[in-house]
Amino acid sequence: MISAWPRMFARAPRTVYSLGVPADVRAVSRLSRDEARALLGGKGAGLFEMSRIGLPVPPGFTVTTDVCRSYHARKAESFLTPEFHAAVARLEAAVGRRLGDPRGPLLVSVRSGSKFSMPGMMDTILNLGLNDRTALGLQFQTGNPRFAWDCYRRFIAMFGAVVNGIDKAEFEAVLTKVKSDCGARTDAQLSAEGLRRAVVLSQDLYKERAGFPFPQKPVEQLRLAVTAVFDSWNNPRACAYRRLHRIPQDLGTACTVQAMVFGNMGADSATGVGFTRDPGTGEPAFYGEFLVNAQGEDVVAGARTPRPLSELESHMPSAYRRLLEISGKLERHYADVQDMEFTIEKGRLFMLQTRTGKRSAMAAIRIAVDMVAEGLITPEQAVMRLSPEQLDELLRPVFDEGASARAKVLARGLPAGPGAASGKVCFTSERAVAEAVHGPVILVRPETNPDDIQGMAAAQGILTATGGMTSHAAVVGRGMGKVCVVGCGELESLGLKEGDWLSLDGFKGRVLEGRVEAQPSEILEVLLGKRPAEKSELYRRYERFMAWADAARRLQVRANADTPADAEAARALGACGIGLCRTEHMFFGPDRLPKVLAMIIAESEAERLEAVEALYPLQKADFLAIFNTMRGLPVTVRTIDPPLHEFLPRTREEAERAAALHGLDAGRLWSKTLELKEANPMLGHRGCRLGITFPGITRMQARAILSAACEAAAEGGGAAPEIMIPLVGHASEFRHQKRLVAEAAEAVFREHGRRVDYQVGTMIEVPRAALTAGEIAPEAEFFSFGTNDLTQMTLGYSRDDYGRYIGRYLEMKILDADPFRSLDATGVGRLVRLAVAEGRRARPDLKLGVCGEHGGDPASIRFFHDAGLGYVSCSPYRVPAARLAAAQAAILS
Amino acid sequence: MISAWPRMFARAPRTVYSLGVPADVRAVSRLSRDEARALLGGKGAGLFEMSRIGLPVPPGFTVTTDVCRSYHARKAESFLTPEFHAAVARLEAAVGRRLGDPRGPLLVSVRSGSKFSMPGMMDTILNLGLNDRTALGLQFQTGNPRFAWDCYRRFIAMFGAVVNGIDKAEFEAVLTKVKSDCGARTDAQLSAEGLRRAVVLSQDLYKERAGFPFPQKPVEQLRLAVTAVFDSWNNPRACAYRRLHRIPQDLGTACTVQAMVFGNMGADSATGVGFTRDPGTGEPAFYGEFLVNAQGEDVVAGARTPRPLSELESHMPSAYRRLLEISGKLERHYADVQDMEFTIEKGRLFMLQTRTGKRSAMAAIRIAVDMVAEGLITPEQAVMRLSPEQLDELLRPVFDEGASARAKVLARGLPAGPGAASGKVCFTSERAVAEAVHGPVILVRPETNPDDIQGMAAAQGILTATGGMTSHAAVVGRGMGKVCVVGCGELESLGLKEGDWLSLDGFKGRVLEGRVEAQPSEILEVLLGKRPAEKSELYRRYERFMAWADAARRLQVRANADTPADAEAARALGACGIGLCRTEHMFFGPDRLPKVLAMIIAESEAERLEAVEALYPLQKADFLAIFNTMRGLPVTVRTIDPPLHEFLPRTREEAERAAALHGLDAGRLWSKTLELKEANPMLGHRGCRLGITFPGITRMQARAILSAACEAAAEGGGAAPEIMIPLVGHASEFRHQKRLVAEAAEAVFREHGRRVDYQVGTMIEVPRAALTAGEIAPEAEFFSFGTNDLTQMTLGYSRDDYGRYIGRYLEMKILDADPFRSLDATGVGRLVRLAVAEGRRARPDLKLGVCGEHGGDPASIRFFHDAGLGYVSCSPYRVPAARLAAAQAAILS
Repeated sequence: MISAWPRMFARAPRTVYSLGVPADVRAVSRLSRDEARALLGGKGAGLFEMSRIGLPVPPGFTVTTDVCRSYHARKAESFLTPEFHAAVARLEAAVGRRLGDPRGPLLVSVRSGSKFSMPGMMDTILNLGLNDRTALGLQFQTGNPRFAWDCYRRFIAMFGAVVNGIDKAEFEAVLTKVKSDCGARTDAQLSAEGLRRAVVLSQDLYKERAGFPFPQKPVEQLRLAVTAVFDSWNNPRACAYRRLHRIPQDLGTACTVQAMVFGNMGADSATGVGFTRDPGTGEPAFYGEFLVNAQGEDVVAGARTPRPLSELESHMPSAYRRLLEISGKLERHYADVQDMEFTIEKGRLFMLQTRTGKRSAMAAIRIAVDMVAEGLITPEQAVMRLSPEQLDELLRPVFDEGASARAKVLARGLPAGPGAASGKVCFTSERAVAEAVHGPVILVRPETNPDDIQGMAAAQGILTATGGMTSHAAVVGRGMGKVCVVGCGELESLGLKEGDWLSLDGFKGRVLEGRVEAQPSEILEVLLGKRPAEKSELYRRYERFMAWADAARRLQVRANADTPADAEAARALGACGIGLCRTEHMFFGPDRLPKVLAMIIAESEAERLEAVEALYPLQKADFLAIFNTMRGLPVTVRTIDPPLHEFLPRTREEAERAAALHGLDAGRLWSKTLELKEANPMLGHRGCRLGITFPGITRMQARAILSAACEAAAEGGGAAPEIMIPLVGHASEFRHQKRLVAEAAEAVFREHGRRVDYQVGTMIEVPRAALTAGEIAPEAEFFSFGTNDLTQMTLGYSRDDYGRYIGRYLEMKILDADPFRSLDATGVGRLVRLAVAEGRRARPDLKLGVCGEHGGDPASIRFFHDAGLGYVSCSPYRVPAARLAAAQAAILS
Repeated sequence: MISAWPRMFARAPRTVYSLGVPADVRAVSRLSRDEARALLGGKGAGLFEMSRIGLPVPPGFTVTTDVCRSYHARKAESFLTPEFHAAVARLEAAVGRRLGDPRGPLLVSVRSGSKFSMPGMMDTILNLGLNDRTALGLQFQTGNPRFAWDCYRRFIAMFGAVVNGIDKAEFEAVLTKVKSDCGARTDAQLSAEGLRRAVVLSQDLYKERAGFPFPQKPVEQLRLAVTAVFDSWNNPRACAYRRLHRIPQDLGTACTVQAMVFGNMGADSATGVGFTRDPGTGEPAFYGEFLVNAQGEDVVAGARTPRPLSELESHMPSAYRRLLEISGKLERHYADVQDMEFTIEKGRLFMLQTRTGKRSAMAAIRIAVDMVAEGLITPEQAVMRLSPEQLDELLRPVFDEGASARAKVLARGLPAGPGAASGKVCFTSERAVAEAVHGPVILVRPETNPDDIQGMAAAQGILTATGGMTSHAAVVGRGMGKVCVVGCGELESLGLKEGDWLSLDGFKGRVLEGRVEAQPSEILEVLLGKRPAEKSELYRRYERFMAWADAARRLQVRANADTPADAEAARALGACGIGLCRTEHMFFGPDRLPKVLAMIIAESEAERLEAVEALYPLQKADFLAIFNTMRGLPVTVRTIDPPLHEFLPRTREEAERAAALHGLDAGRLWSKTLELKEANPMLGHRGCRLGITFPGITRMQARAILSAACEAAAEGGGAAPEIMIPLVGHASEFRHQKRLVAEAAEAVFREHGRRVDYQVGTMIEVPRAALTAGEIAPEAEFFSFGTNDLTQMTLGYSRDDYGRYIGRYLEMKILDADPFRSLDATGVGRLVRLAVAEGRRARPDLKLGVCGEHGGDPASIRFFHDAGLGYVSCSPYRVPAARLAAAQAAILS
């Protein structure tokens, strides 16, 4: 059915590229792979590449994504150009058949394809060109009336579904009715006459639903099909998919029109998919499935069970050998695992698609390491082959596959902390702490707040009813490496009771019934010293892979850690220091809170100082433990940051309970709470504003940090404290706090009879600080960008409130991404770049880092690398992913 | 006693300048007047200038402010340099006497003096050089033992007070005791012996209080005196004065050491002060007071009643004629009113000081206009002679002087709205509205909120217990031109009852008992058409003065006005348009609030649209009235801005009352209130975020604005609406809202069969908007800087909460000024300049203005002028002051 491509069209058209036309193939080959995929879609680019290296590809042409974009911009069907018609003519000439020719009609497939793979999101139509006359022609040409009517039936259903939005199930119902009328149990038992009857009834259905008869003119069919493919770019599920995967919404899809080849022409025909390596394990073995006498959609639909590719060898030995040879050639050509679609028509092999094979995290790391060993790729290329998210996945506990599949999904929420966890439901933090002694617990709360820290630490997983990806539960839970599902609106209606077993799938945000078996991460167990490295092949791959990543990156990676346990994990996971140690998290401990409350409700300066002093030995012990853990690595300690009312009770009842518990005056506690209430606490009396109006707190903290550092140094372990002043907006604020620190330092050093090196720096989180970086830098030894607050203030978005509109904003494309998840490079990023440039100008050796949530986000890490920062800091369990993201940023920049 | 200055020292020293040394006088004369005052203080500069033009000035020298600054920086008494000693030697040579010479001692005065006049804030010491031996010398030299011992007694007291901080009253007590011991009733009755006894007892007191004997060495006296003068720069009252008058804290004071001349050497001696014109009325007549046989401090102390200068003519005709001649010469020389101090020693006149005379607002405008008529100054110079605050004062009602002096001051608060008001106390807005029908009322509230608008409008004055200069009461009250005293902490304790008469002095923040008579501003009465212009000489001066100001300025001045009454006032006061019309202020009217509440609690989109539609005719009528008032001048209307919960009740009880009143469901109202509550409303769901998520509101408002504009145009008055979108951070937000407006416009124009010109622009109030001005400007026809919110977000200061630390910040010099009062030019200003530059680059004809509170602040207006904005917009009653500030900015730049 297929002939060689005639070399008759030399001129390369601009909006349509024809496969097999040498000038077009050459033009495409001059593009980079990215450019080719951007212009022709992944599918089109793969076909042109296969054509270029001499693989068997059916003739066809691709309408570029430019055309789709201009179609959407102008809403005009501008693709029916002379160029388009010429491409159709070329295709007819290449195949030797014409569209609509009743004696031997050309049939084509019409497929979408965009720069980034969006599997199943957009539409495809097969067998286009069939009508009441060409169906007869196909019957005549193939001598196979069953085949012809089956093709026509499938075409009407697919066309109706894609072009006119008719439910596929309605066409299925027609087929079922015909089968029942004929007494056929399976499709295969239907006669040609039965299939013909299905065609007639499908046309009736089409007319009824569409309001006009099924179009008989193939050119009209083609116009409608291409339009539908373009429109499918903007269908809601495609838009949602792109948003989820951060694919730009304005790329558009290409459309490839290709001569049909048939895997359903008998026992010498087949269709299938193949992977050059096993996409689940990474094992270097040809892997795939095929169906004899079938079309591609049969494999996808799952009505018949495909057979493993290894069986093809005995069935069609020559086609199998050719396929194996092509598989090897393609993997070598692309130097990566390929995912191929092929069809065998009457013994002849055609390649319909090749693309980079998606693979599991487990497979990805094995393939990357193996391919370096095989000399196929360089270590740098290997580093690009695993996404930071995949690496993160390898560090998480996972449910046993079977158990997870059997488990009942009770509800869904947002996947805020990946991993798998099971435990008994606890509704309060106290309960969680108490129950955790007896076994694993899941903390279930409407939402969490700083009081819940102990309970969160004790729990295996955290489930909340409200809050988004940056809510307290999400941020703090993620930071602790906990499995976390937030914003589960259905929670109330589940009727959970304390003590019930529950499982959380933090990868997908699923809430599962009962206790689902899970396994810890093998790599993490080795890293944390719970399993010997020698016994884990996976760990050895990880180790090699991370060594390449570390060699490639320029950004250092630190961790945000508030406790010795956090610090321990941070070191184990490869952090080269602590970038943010929040001292106030230490204030919530049951031994500290009464002292903190006493400090807040103090009625005189003397009373306040006394309460502050009571905190001193506790804080010093905290810092000493952290310094001892970090053994001389830098530790950035932030002085007190949150507004004082965060430590106070929220209701009169809570005040009474707290007062009784801690032996305080309930009336004073509650009246202080009311007094300290703020209209906009985010912009309130917090950060260095506290340290300036209550200098005793800063003095005490500086003394605790530096005394601990002296003691750590005396014990031989060393300490490199960096004291960080939060919420600075004016250089004068920083100067004031720095002076307090310096005075405390001199006193401490005198007392200990030794000095330790320390630095004093500032967070850059108030826009004014970024705008006046040139004034602050001469005073500050380091800047640490607090991109959470910087985003809040630069965009005017309260992280606690933006949930009211951010969803609509993303839907309406007002925003491309959640600015708290991925840094707003245009607005917030401009402030960062400005502060970097002007800070460095004022102090060339200024240390620059970032300690906001963005420090763990790959896209943001790319930005920070490009902006020239020295380090990022993120939660300990994000450290490996951040190291990888930093390496990828360095390689890409 | 005084000889000509010997021309023996030619080299001009760097840290000390000697009066009468030609090289020094020449060096000073090469400086600009500002530079001279900065270097030598106002007093020093005046002395050098008088010396230069040949007026009689006692010899002396001035230690520069540089020395004071380096003294404070290094805390070293570095002024005792060889230069200093040389200057002392020159002074001794010039006078022909030496410090400490027992036979004819040199006595000097040591005076402070800084660039900006700070009357009475810093210290002065007279008669320095006296000790137990030189007192005898002085007695011998003058032949007047009473005089000598009186000088010595005064010197010890002054020195003790200034250098050692001993209470002056203690020295007074010594004198009183001596008088009583001697049976003397007045100082004059004391014998020389009595005065000598006072010296001895004063020395005893000194020793007891200071802990060491009174220093006898004149050089030591001099060192201590200069040190004390330098230290007095930083005394608390001087710091507070500078903060209040926005004088930089780091200028330092100069110190002038000058040979004493004595007005207390008998009946042929005198001392006094003179003004070249009357500083109260501006009348062009020599004005002042003198005392015979007295030292300067006697005039200040008020123990004796000085006589009017006119009487000097008969007393000392030749000295008077010389003084009159000097007065004219000085006024002509400086081309401004001079305030002079002089002393006549045995018939010989010495000038001790000349400086620009302070004057009342009334005098200032008369002097400015008169001096132009006299050809002394140009109109541009005249424009610089009245501060915007003084101009503002001329537009306010004032208390009758006598009545005000007699009235009892009950309490003090912050002067948030200038003027004088009396009325009956009302504790609620409802009550104020009801009572205002019967007579003037004062609204007294803990604090005000938007519900109080009606009551505030009805009241003559507003008094609140809490809140600062930018609280709701202050901002809105000022905007309405109301007399306003806020933050009156003592309010609770006054025991006020409803119906009590109360008076408010909004100039000084005083709360006065009872009904104090006040008069309306004469100028304002003419402007508002309540008094004929012909009958007011004051108005005619105002008119001429403002014409000069308007000719000089480049910035246009608009007004913020939400009602036709505001708009009327704005026009009368010279606004060339409305820069901010807040549509939501219209939402609080009693006929609107139920509809607004219905809109908010709507449970379906249809229900919401219905409620929104019900607001349409009301909003349209509002806009029509404003357009008709403004007769074609531009009116910038801002679409809805505040978060919806601002319209909702604050408590469950309020919700029940409101629901009953407006026929709504109380439960729904309250649950919606809870639902809409935000953690940080300032950064919440407001501004265009509302317009985007509830597009119906924007559509309705655009329709109302443009329909009203069409009707105004049809009625012949014209309308130039500018629709302003608030809280834009992303260009995409603006595009969305602009599209809604454009669609509404087309529909309205079709309906009315006519088009009107309109513009759509944006507020720049989110830092990101400023940072991406280049992306927004291609879409927006104008930018209006909302500097209140821009300040809140750029500095991270919540205006509702910053009161917790701003006081300390100003005290501690962390900040120089309240950033909500005067624009933070460094931080916020940088964003403004950046947005101006990048906005203009993207759209050269971009209209640029400012509509925040800063639009009425002179220092900020100067910044906006320099930044190249086109207009400022402020409250109607600030318009004349803003016009003047704009003119002064243009002249100064």
